[in-house]
Amino acid sequence: MSERIFNFSPGPSMLPESVLKKAQAAIWNYNDSGMGVMELSHRGSHFEAIIKDTEQRLRKLLNISDDYAVLFCTGGATNQFSMVPMNLLAKGSVGNYILSGMFAEKAYEEAKKFGEIHVAASTKDKGYREVPTEIALSTNAAYLHFTSNNTIFGTQFAHEPDAHGAPLVCDASSDLLHKPLDISKYGLIYAGTQKNLGIAGATIVIIKRDLLARSADTLPAMMDYRTYAKNDSLYNTAPTFPIYVTGEVLKWIESEGGALGMEKRAWERASILYNFLDHCDFYAPYASHESRSLMNITFKLKDDKLEKQFVTEAESCGLNGLKGHRNVGGFRVSIYNAFPVEGIKTLVAFMGDFAKRNG
Amino acid sequence: MSERIFNFSPGPSMLPESVLKKAQAAIWNYNDSGMGVMELSHRGSHFEAIIKDTEQRLRKLLNISDDYAVLFCTGGATNQFSMVPMNLLAKGSVGNYILSGMFAEKAYEEAKKFGEIHVAASTKDKGYREVPTEIALSTNAAYLHFTSNNTIFGTQFAHEPDAHGAPLVCDASSDLLHKPLDISKYGLIYAGTQKNLGIAGATIVIIKRDLLARSADTLPAMMDYRTYAKNDSLYNTAPTFPIYVTGEVLKWIESEGGALGMEKRAWERASILYNFLDHCDFYAPYASHESRSLMNITFKLKDDKLEKQFVTEAESCGLNGLKGHRNVGGFRVSIYNAFPVEGIKTLVAFMGDFAKRNG
Repeated sequence: MSERIFNFSPGPSMLPESVLKKAQAAIWNYNDSGMGVMELSHRGSHFEAIIKDTEQRLRKLLNISDDYAVLFCTGGATNQFSMVPMNLLAKGSVGNYILSGMFAEKAYEEAKKFGEIHVAASTKDKGYREVPTEIALSTNAAYLHFTSNNTIFGTQFAHEPDAHGAPLVCDASSDLLHKPLDISKYGLIYAGTQKNLGIAGATIVIIKRDLLARSADTLPAMMDYRTYAKNDSLYNTAPTFPIYVTGEVLKWIESEGGALGMEKRAWERASILYNFLDHCDFYAPYASHESRSLMNITFKLKDDKLEKQFVTEAESCGLNGLKGHRNVGGFRVSIYNAFPVEGIKTLVAFMGDFAKRNG
Repeated sequence: MSERIFNFSPGPSMLPESVLKKAQAAIWNYNDSGMGVMELSHRGSHFEAIIKDTEQRLRKLLNISDDYAVLFCTGGATNQFSMVPMNLLAKGSVGNYILSGMFAEKAYEEAKKFGEIHVAASTKDKGYREVPTEIALSTNAAYLHFTSNNTIFGTQFAHEPDAHGAPLVCDASSDLLHKPLDISKYGLIYAGTQKNLGIAGATIVIIKRDLLARSADTLPAMMDYRTYAKNDSLYNTAPTFPIYVTGEVLKWIESEGGALGMEKRAWERASILYNFLDHCDFYAPYASHESRSLMNITFKLKDDKLEKQFVTEAESCGLNGLKGHRNVGGFRVSIYNAFPVEGIKTLVAFMGDFAKRNG
């Protein structure tokens, strides 16, 4: 086994090795400042340059216009489950939710605390094997919320759902920047950074500026999008090191061809495994074909008594984090932006061999 | 100038060099797992051991009994300014606040959003040069909130204020674990980790378990202390790397004699500078003698026209981050747990020389 293994965890997850090496050096002495990057004052010139540069790179990579604010928040996507309705759900309007998986459900359950909520679509009765296609909005829709990629079930929206003019709000925690996006279709996009964009501890929010007018002055300061928008995300001490790592991951994405480069990598990784699964009877893919995710690939063994053996043998081959979520069982292969193609090839070779020996 | 300089920033701030070196190695390969510490799943055995171990070390260092829950939150102390009243301020009761500085004022202003608030003491009219001693609680006090150390003004409570039976709530962001504490005197203590305990991105909350009963089911999930208490701070993806760094800082504190060792270091550092200031007419300490902080030492130059020159020359000697907060002016010397005594000696030598050359 090489010094580093292939880590298929659903997030936090693998980072580019070049980013790890830069972080190692920066921890001791950032840019010849004589101070480590984790020790920099958030009010000092070094960190101010880092956060500005990170925002600018994200804007360029996703072609985000100045009609949108880019915010660095904390608390993960779960905190956004509250912040979205607290800020956007004005009295008399209705929050619309598409249920496509467990995190979509969590967003929906949380939103109920703050106002009237409507289920615009759901594939729950199909075991979330596919994403909904028919959307039925309520009247007075404040927004339409959807989860672009469903990590647990291994499904993904290939295209944005039609919000019929309401602002589209997207939890893109597990697929932001895996391909180019037309940001102008969205009112708000949020994503924890620990899957495709860095480490745990920062949450990116891209919000159309005109939506900021909906927030009320009675909101808790750190739950009010305006607190971040007015202060360039430096109202208080931001999570400086997680933001630094995101900046370095964005530089790496640029060097790999930007959003298009990431999409090419994603298709290459996913195709190798889906092609294998489609030609090997030993394994059963979980997600419906037309809803398959490029980020999380779920499958079961036709003989589930072999699951434990599969995990043990995979781990001894340096393939870690494959166990599926308890709500689905089986296996989940999480392959975010930084995951190397080589790891998927190694996995498929192992899976072929395992099938041969146990089929 | 040596490779690393002395960084007097008010937080984030200097970390022990041994912790930086361990973090450098762990980023590449944590504990021979083949995965970097930032890439570990928050649901995996490695990180679960890290967060449990970190909690246990904190409990041991501060002698925290099982009557208290230890929580790892996000959003910094500013988020606690909201969470404290949102969770503890039941209808009909009154939040009591001691105003001893700018962050105490911010906590007070934020609390007003959530219920009835009373100023139990204030030294605002004294320019916050000292901490209040006379406390006048309201009737039906839900709690008494105070800020144990005031970074901007350089003052600190030597002893806890008397809460007359109400739960004592403390913002200890800038002095937690700089000395032993009798936790049983407190209802709740919170602290961002970026000053004395690690890096920006995690917030520690120590809360007496019986106070958890005050939280209402209508609270946003991540603003409800029970969410963290019921799920060992792993309801969602915790800020894994900031928590890891805190664990390593706690190990370092143990190796330096624990809370008592930190107190000895704090007195040694502060005494060197206060003794110098008390014997050199060129400088004017800002805080009143009896309220002097061990963590942040504030002073001005009697001739403020020399301030710019002082900063420039200090920086060229590898002494960074000394500029005072704009509300006070002058200089602020922030010397948290990890700050080396050698740095204070270097500073005092520079200050003596600067006074001689310009006095």
